[in-house]
Amino acid sequence: MRLLFVTGNKHKFMEAERILKEHGISIDQFDLPHNEIRAESCEEVARNSLHSLHRHIDVPFFVEDAGLFVKALNGFPGTFSAWVFKKIGNEGILKLMENKENRDAVFRSAIGVFYNDESKILSGEVKGKIAPKAKGSEGFGFDPIFIPEGYKKTFAEDRRLKFINSHRKNALDKMVHWLETR
Amino acid sequence: MRLLFVTGNKHKFMEAERILKEHGISIDQFDLPHNEIRAESCEEVARNSLHSLHRHIDVPFFVEDAGLFVKALNGFPGTFSAWVFKKIGNEGILKLMENKENRDAVFRSAIGVFYNDESKILSGEVKGKIAPKAKGSEGFGFDPIFIPEGYKKTFAEDRRLKFINSHRKNALDKMVHWLETR
Repeated sequence: MRLLFVTGNKHKFMEAERILKEHGISIDQFDLPHNEIRAESCEEVARNSLHSLHRHIDVPFFVEDAGLFVKALNGFPGTFSAWVFKKIGNEGILKLMENKENRDAVFRSAIGVFYNDESKILSGEVKGKIAPKAKGSEGFGFDPIFIPEGYKKTFAEDRRLKFINSHRKNALDKMVHWLETR
Repeated sequence: MRLLFVTGNKHKFMEAERILKEHGISIDQFDLPHNEIRAESCEEVARNSLHSLHRHIDVPFFVEDAGLFVKALNGFPGTFSAWVFKKIGNEGILKLMENKENRDAVFRSAIGVFYNDESKILSGEVKGKIAPKAKGSEGFGFDPIFIPEGYKKTFAEDRRLKFINSHRKNALDKMVHWLETR
């Protein structure tokens, strides 16, 4: 099976490519710029992107929106993670987390997929903590400051972590299951 | 003259009402929810909102987008100011500014106005500094941490400041001039 992944993010694409390959699904990156709406949930962003792109693409494709939701920061940076990362980086989040006792955070992902006249939104998440400092150089974005539950390393310290249990991996697995039952 | 101001923000509305009254312009608040795009400039946001609302409103109206752009934070929180304020507040910005020598910031406003089949985008700004701590209770949003150039008080300490020289006042003055020459 072959699908388009509409994203401008090369890192996201490579992660998805590796995960989907194991299920016999090949993907191609299609960097089609489109306006993303402002919304509180990844699902809303993915749904909106899916439906606005649907008008322009008539082959099977999917989009993904992801974000880091930090409990002590009321869910900041959430669906604006990519933009906030560009502006204030890991350093900014660590600064905001100084003296915060509750370091709980969750990485969320929502995929919008279009296949044979059907569409579906699929969500994934992984719970964890904001690390005391940035560590590692694998992955991208906020990976160096996120320690998934049950581990002692950040996503950026051990690249296997994101392929074992990550928000994106979980959403992609659900997409695979959905596609297999079409 | 009578105009609709499409906004969900009562504070913004009251500021604009007071400024425009002096020019003999009355305004009514119209809280019509609409998607704002993600963009780097207030002008892009205002332009997009103006044109999407234009399809639904056929009386003279205007929209406004405003934001605080902090130099040492690469323009953060910018066009996402209202959302960032809700999440991390003045406290969050002050935290991010700890140990930053350059405290330069600028408040920007962009108005999109529609009047008699013509539309126009008008911009206003006011330069200033991020205060060492939040002071005052006038105004709204980031007013307690912004000291306009040439003054020693924050926007929130002396409510007259925003009516003498503010981003919104400057953009509204330009709108008045534009309307007067129609």
